Amino acid sequence: MADKKYKIVFIGAGNVATHLGLALLKSKHTIVQVCSLRNSSSKELAKLLKSKISTSVEDIDTSADIYIVATNDDTITKVANKIKINNKIIVHTSGSIDMNVLQKASPNIGVFYPLQTFSKQKKIDFSKIPVCIEASNNKTSKVLKTLAKSISNNVIEIDSKQRKTIHLAAVFANNFTNHLYTIAEDILIKNDLPFDILKPLIEETNNKIRNNSPAKMQTGPSVRGDSKTLKAHEQLLLNDKDYLQVYKLLSKSIIKSKKNN
Amino acid sequence: MADKKYKIVFIGAGNVATHLGLALLKSKHTIVQVCSLRNSSSKELAKLLKSKISTSVEDIDTSADIYIVATNDDTITKVANKIKINNKIIVHTSGSIDMNVLQKASPNIGVFYPLQTFSKQKKIDFSKIPVCIEASNNKTSKVLKTLAKSISNNVIEIDSKQRKTIHLAAVFANNFTNHLYTIAEDILIKNDLPFDILKPLIEETNNKIRNNSPAKMQTGPSVRGDSKTLKAHEQLLLNDKDYLQVYKLLSKSIIKSKKNN
Repeated sequence: MADKKYKIVFIGAGNVATHLGLALLKSKHTIVQVCSLRNSSSKELAKLLKSKISTSVEDIDTSADIYIVATNDDTITKVANKIKINNKIIVHTSGSIDMNVLQKASPNIGVFYPLQTFSKQKKIDFSKIPVCIEASNNKTSKVLKTLAKSISNNVIEIDSKQRKTIHLAAVFANNFTNHLYTIAEDILIKNDLPFDILKPLIEETNNKIRNNSPAKMQTGPSVRGDSKTLKAHEQLLLNDKDYLQVYKLLSKSIIKSKKNN
Repeated sequence: MADKKYKIVFIGAGNVATHLGLALLKSKHTIVQVCSLRNSSSKELAKLLKSKISTSVEDIDTSADIYIVATNDDTITKVANKIKINNKIIVHTSGSIDMNVLQKASPNIGVFYPLQTFSKQKKIDFSKIPVCIEASNNKTSKVLKTLAKSISNNVIEIDSKQRKTIHLAAVFANNFTNHLYTIAEDILIKNDLPFDILKPLIEETNNKIRNNSPAKMQTGPSVRGDSKTLKAHEQLLLNDKDYLQVYKLLSKSIIKSKKNN
């Protein structure tokens, strides 16, 4: 069962389709077709994945085993309501969309959510990426698990509510964190200082939580109750009302977390 | 000059004194004395650094070349106003305190600020840590540069204003980031999900900015203008007013940053 190879169609040709498609191809599955409204992206990806192309859901190849909808969230339901796939398995790859939006397409539906941030240019080792699986029935679940295990050592079965919670937590840990780096970079650049100076610190901040709870690793003026430094920092941010607001709210939130611990 | 070895006294016996002291000892400087009001910490550190101890600034050894005040910020001025060191060099290690608070102690004053987050238990490679140097005169500056270069390959001369700016940026990139990890962990734990599931994502978020500006690496619902997901996340946080506030403010800040770019 673990060696079973599948025939797959991708709907969508963005970052998720690209990285997931490459990982599946590497594990000897066949990507039959890439379907994308934008002709140029599907051409590019189809070449990478050695597959046919289609620019319309009406022309979809019906011979595949699994249809992976890796479009933006708004398009998933539209695709599901239009596609004809004779009860084949269809999944989407979104962290925040209900599995059930697929139910007009087939009784055999699921979610195949790789918990990672993908950039077009950057290669990625899929074996360590958690793949979160959800399915409408046992048969579909087994197929999706086999597919996921062929590319990742970290396959997890969760329901839609858990997936949405994970996606929310990921926004804090990834999107918001990156934005704080952006603010730090902007503060430094405005003062003719290079962002590079912070990189050893950022690396160590992340090393620390590899084996420790971040709640126990908190440092800085807020958790120390160092109100002089807090005041001094707020003074430095007086001309940057937006950053000042972020500074005040996160400092308050750290102080509150400390009290609750 | 680069091989010159110094005799050093530490005032303070916390994390900075410990890690800096160990790095200086490894580079063949002599730690003459550790002075700390808390007898137990100074004993422990003096043993590590093969030095004498003192529990009062009045008993300070006056034979050293450099006095490093690595206490908490509030104590630095008190130490400087009391210590008698015959015009020897005295520095503090703080990111946010003016160099001039030391001026009662000596005409030869400076700052020796290692830009890193230190934990008691965790060993650290000092060679990559940026050491920010400031001095009241050229002679002192030369000594501090020699000292800093003996333990780090990343020595930078900056003034007090620049140092305070760096410290502020470090709060965003380190303290606030760690707090976002704490929030993510808390959201997951409350839903019986392990924080470990986010670790590959956190690692990749940080890999991305190693060679790219974080401003260009922003992903997520806010920067995509995906208002449905934003609304759904806010719904999930309705029982967590504090996290909801952080979510809304950082989302708004990301949207604003995008407009300015």
